[in-house]
Amino acid sequence: MSKKRVGIIGAGPSGLAQLRAFEAAKKKGEEVPEVVCFEKQSNWGGMWNYSWRTGVGKYGEPIHGSMYKYLWSNGPKECLEFSDYSFDEHFEKPISSYPPRPVLFDYIQGRIKKDNVRDYIRFDTTVRWVSFDENTKKFTVMLDDLKNNKTYAEEFDYLVVASGHFSTPNMPYFKGIENFPGNVLHAHDFRGADQFKDQNLLLIGSSYSAEDIGVQCHKHGAKSVTLSYRTNAIGVDWPEGMKEMPLVTHFEEDEAFFKNGETEKYDAVIMCTGYQHKFPFLPDNMRLKTKNNLYPDNLYKGVFFNENPQLIYLGMQDQYYTFNMFDTQAWLARDYMLGKYKLPAKDERRVDIDKWLERNENLKDGHDHVDFQSDYIRDIIKLSDYPDFNLDKVAEMFKEWLKDKEENILTYRDKTYQSVVTGTMAAEHHTDWMDEMDDSKERYLFE
Amino acid sequence: MSKKRVGIIGAGPSGLAQLRAFEAAKKKGEEVPEVVCFEKQSNWGGMWNYSWRTGVGKYGEPIHGSMYKYLWSNGPKECLEFSDYSFDEHFEKPISSYPPRPVLFDYIQGRIKKDNVRDYIRFDTTVRWVSFDENTKKFTVMLDDLKNNKTYAEEFDYLVVASGHFSTPNMPYFKGIENFPGNVLHAHDFRGADQFKDQNLLLIGSSYSAEDIGVQCHKHGAKSVTLSYRTNAIGVDWPEGMKEMPLVTHFEEDEAFFKNGETEKYDAVIMCTGYQHKFPFLPDNMRLKTKNNLYPDNLYKGVFFNENPQLIYLGMQDQYYTFNMFDTQAWLARDYMLGKYKLPAKDERRVDIDKWLERNENLKDGHDHVDFQSDYIRDIIKLSDYPDFNLDKVAEMFKEWLKDKEENILTYRDKTYQSVVTGTMAAEHHTDWMDEMDDSKERYLFE
Ligand SMILES: Cc1cc2nc3c(=O)[nH]c(=O)nc-3n(C[C@H](O)[C@H](O)[C@H](O)COP(=O)(O)OP(=O)(O)OC[C@H]3O[C@@H](n4cnc5c(N)ncnc54)[C@H](O)[C@@H]3O)c2cc1C
Ligand SMILES: Cc1cc2nc3c(=O)[nH]c(=O)nc-3n(C[C@H](O)[C@H](O)[C@H](O)COP(=O)(O)OP(=O)(O)OC[C@H]3O[C@@H](n4cnc5c(N)ncnc54)[C@H](O)[C@@H]3O)c2cc1C
Ligand SMILES: NC(=O)c1ccc[n+]([C@@H]2O[C@H](COP(=O)([O-])OP(=O)(O)OC[C@H]3O[C@@H](n4cnc5c(N)ncnc54)[C@H](OP(=O)(O)O)[C@@H]3O)[C@@H](O)[C@H]2O)c1
Ligand SMILES: NC(=O)c1ccc[n+]([C@@H]2O[C@H](COP(=O)([O-])OP(=O)(O)OC[C@H]3O[C@@H](n4cnc5c(N)ncnc54)[C@H](OP(=O)(O)O)[C@@H]3O)[C@@H](O)[C@H]2O)c1
Repeated sequence: MSKKRVGIIGAGPSGLAQLRAFEAAKKKGEEVPEVVCFEKQSNWGGMWNYSWRTGVGKYGEPIHGSMYKYLWSNGPKECLEFSDYSFDEHFEKPISSYPPRPVLFDYIQGRIKKDNVRDYIRFDTTVRWVSFDENTKKFTVMLDDLKNNKTYAEEFDYLVVASGHFSTPNMPYFKGIENFPGNVLHAHDFRGADQFKDQNLLLIGSSYSAEDIGVQCHKHGAKSVTLSYRTNAIGVDWPEGMKEMPLVTHFEEDEAFFKNGETEKYDAVIMCTGYQHKFPFLPDNMRLKTKNNLYPDNLYKGVFFNENPQLIYLGMQDQYYTFNMFDTQAWLARDYMLGKYKLPAKDERRVDIDKWLERNENLKDGHDHVDFQSDYIRDIIKLSDYPDFNLDKVAEMFKEWLKDKEENILTYRDKTYQSVVTGTMAAEHHTDWMDEMDDSKERYLFE
Repeated sequence: MSKKRVGIIGAGPSGLAQLRAFEAAKKKGEEVPEVVCFEKQSNWGGMWNYSWRTGVGKYGEPIHGSMYKYLWSNGPKECLEFSDYSFDEHFEKPISSYPPRPVLFDYIQGRIKKDNVRDYIRFDTTVRWVSFDENTKKFTVMLDDLKNNKTYAEEFDYLVVASGHFSTPNMPYFKGIENFPGNVLHAHDFRGADQFKDQNLLLIGSSYSAEDIGVQCHKHGAKSVTLSYRTNAIGVDWPEGMKEMPLVTHFEEDEAFFKNGETEKYDAVIMCTGYQHKFPFLPDNMRLKTKNNLYPDNLYKGVFFNENPQLIYLGMQDQYYTFNMFDTQAWLARDYMLGKYKLPAKDERRVDIDKWLERNENLKDGHDHVDFQSDYIRDIIKLSDYPDFNLDKVAEMFKEWLKDKEENILTYRDKTYQSVVTGTMAAEHHTDWMDEMDDSKERYLFE
């Protein structure tokens, strides 16, 4: 019998986790399928592979990245540590709990470089279209080799969708926005605070992007930052120059009108209104159709597409946990593809999914969310040999982190946490976060 | 025998010309195939359907439009007039030679609304993938109904690609640009001059976009505008506050270094560096692979894909002529699909293409370009019943227009020209272009 073939779409943290999972099995002497990963960018790392570009890239593909200059981890690194590759192993000394993007990118790469998996990745290659043959039970994937302007098809037994879901903006319309004279952009196209220096900024949204872009712009010299919320205000004690307002109802030229009857003029509007789960390369019967939430429907154990579990989705949840969650998912998916983990029947899977969906509907606050995602990981980590880690402790850290942010949104990144993988206590960064204007790796690791 | 089916991709001026061409034949009593047009936007008009958005639209599809506020025709309207629907017929009075975008959009819609073709268009529908079956000689087109998040396939005997080629940016990299602190954008994402008021702007490129965006920003209050050219400067007498420089070699923070050794600091960089012909929905053996030029290779008579003439491309040339050229192309394509116009053998077609390519290679200046495209239209207009128009006269107007621009880049839009369709002399606009800050149709038609 010929080797099974696995196709992975995307070489971000999730796709790389899948490659790493197969490599780990191979090192243990197991027979693994032929694995190919397709990545439309020229490098791996997904979101963490920063691009100065907005719009489209060199080959005219939509830019995937939503990260920006001066982006620092917004949660303690101890909450996302790989349990098979610690920060200590990588940096050989304790570092702070909130590293900037280049440092975390370095860490991701450190692990994956230990394996020789780069050869499995076809870069500058976009997945254009997928079909599934009910008779042969195989996927045909249409690929676009961007560098050579060549398309070709390949067949796979399993398809792992690891294309991320924080890339395609959700950009609502507000009456009059078409006549707003200043810059109107989505958080996806925000590349740094510098150009907004001395400006009065309006950010729409009340989640991570609004909070972080707002704080960064404040730090880097915006004149004022207003956050406008639809459902709930973030509700922390904002420093002078930052405030929250209810939702914008409409615009007249540069003037925003808010639900509470107040109005104010702005220089620029940044829509921090989240992202769409978008899979233009999949026929609709294979598409995950969901909003950003902790348990997207139709995914058994959060990964197996219930209609056809040969189709696997990684990292499609809203994320407290990130790298370590992708790992637990990838290890489980691998064991299924290796025939080591057997799925129950479709109906049984449905019952399990529904149980989680019901619980998800009744979550009340951040603490509930953390416990929910911790329990989800607990549920799947035991099904593979991914190294267990102290989930109770991580959940505690997340709750502490929520408190830190509430206490002081400008200084929470100066706190330190303890690794559950190595027990190491994080170092204090040489400079207070509010005074640290340089986010380079060189500066960060400088002693 | 069942009716043949024609699929049209795009409802911009070219796609609409194709619909109109079939409708014209139908009105003459001819039997026409079943025609379906797919348009990913929610309205017709292509580029002329302005969007305030940049990046992606409501459904996460890349925004097609590259037009902006305060965009006025950059050539005399008399050079693009439909020969079967005059400006007089539409506006019922003489208007000026350089109308703003909303007015030309109105004109395009006026003609198409006379036919009942809107029902043939499926809006909010993106063509995702096309394949061609050598046995059945049919195209299968995978469609994505964005509103309903549904995909489906349809078969066609002929496929008309009218998806435009001024939408996917060509965005070169310049060393250091990643650290430029200000706004860096492509002309495609430029939405108006207002936000650049009082700024020092650097525009890279020396063609229509650079010239027009530069002049608009100057008009609307930019502090200074520098245009940086790669091959040739535009070379007109720039007004104070505008100038041309050789190509940028690199950036250091907000400072641009030019080839001539000079340096200057800027607030924003707009890359007016043209567009890519991009067909992500086609397999590479059906893709037109070309730069922006007057005679793309592999298109017989500028429309029939030589490898497979059931595949038709409209409007893929660089454009002096626009609407009237698309019409002559669409009428010819229609007659081929109706079986009224027969193609010679592939080799013969190749010889004809080569003849044009050779001539294209030896063109020297703007006048040569105009004559070339005039001759091309002359070559195809006689092959269908599209109403002939005085091409010599139009070519003369284009040459006059080139001179007008050279004489004064700020006032050329105040000139008037005479229609070759009706003989009407254009009216003078009530306000000098440099003083006209409102580009609405209401203001334009106000007396
Ligand atoms: C602004 C921002 C800040 C964030 N900050 C943090 C943080 O501080 N800490 C944290 O833990 N998490 C953070 N995240 C969450 C982040 O999404 C995850 O850390 C992680 O990147 C998700 O990994 P992924 O592999 O699932 O998706 P991604 O990282 O998005 O990678 C998906 C990959 O798939 C590729 N791809 C997509 N479509 C195709 C296609 N058709 N063909 C081929 N390749 C394709 C993309 O190019 C990309 O490389 C942040 C997210 C955003 C948007
Ligand atoms: C900034 C700018 C200014 C211009 N100004 C002038 C001017 O003053 N005068 C002039 O004559 N010309 C001007 N032009 C040229 C302009 O391109 C043409 O006038 C005309 O719009 C070209 O028509 P088209 O139908 O070929 O392409 P477009 O107008 O680009 O229309 C293509 C259509 O195809 C659709 N489409 C693309 N891909 C898909 C898909 N996969 N599925 C479904 N639908 C799809 C798009 O949404 C769009 O509606 C300008 C162009 C630009 C970029
Ligand atoms: N490392 C960092 O510092 C950093 C920075 C930014 C982002 N991130 C990450 O990026 C990911 C995405 O975060 P996100 O904040 O972009 O998305 P998100 O968490 O999905 O939040 C979307 C926000 O948009 C609002 N919204 C949606 N539609 C709206 C509408 N029509 N009108 C008004 N508001 C609307 C939502 O409000 P409702 O509550 O009303 O729905 C919500 O506040 C997260 O994983 C986050 O951790 C990290
Ligand atoms: N109505 C209006 O007012 C208006 C306004 C804007 C645009 N338009 C239309 O839009 C269409 C597109 O025009 P366009 O100007 O965007 O594109 P274009 O005519 O194709 O010109 C592209 C320009 O980019 C330059 N360029 C390309 N790559 C470069 C690089 N790596 N470095 C430096 N320069 C580079 C080219 O220089 P080289 O000469 O060196 O190749 C050229 O000057 C035209 O049909 C035009 O009529 C109309």
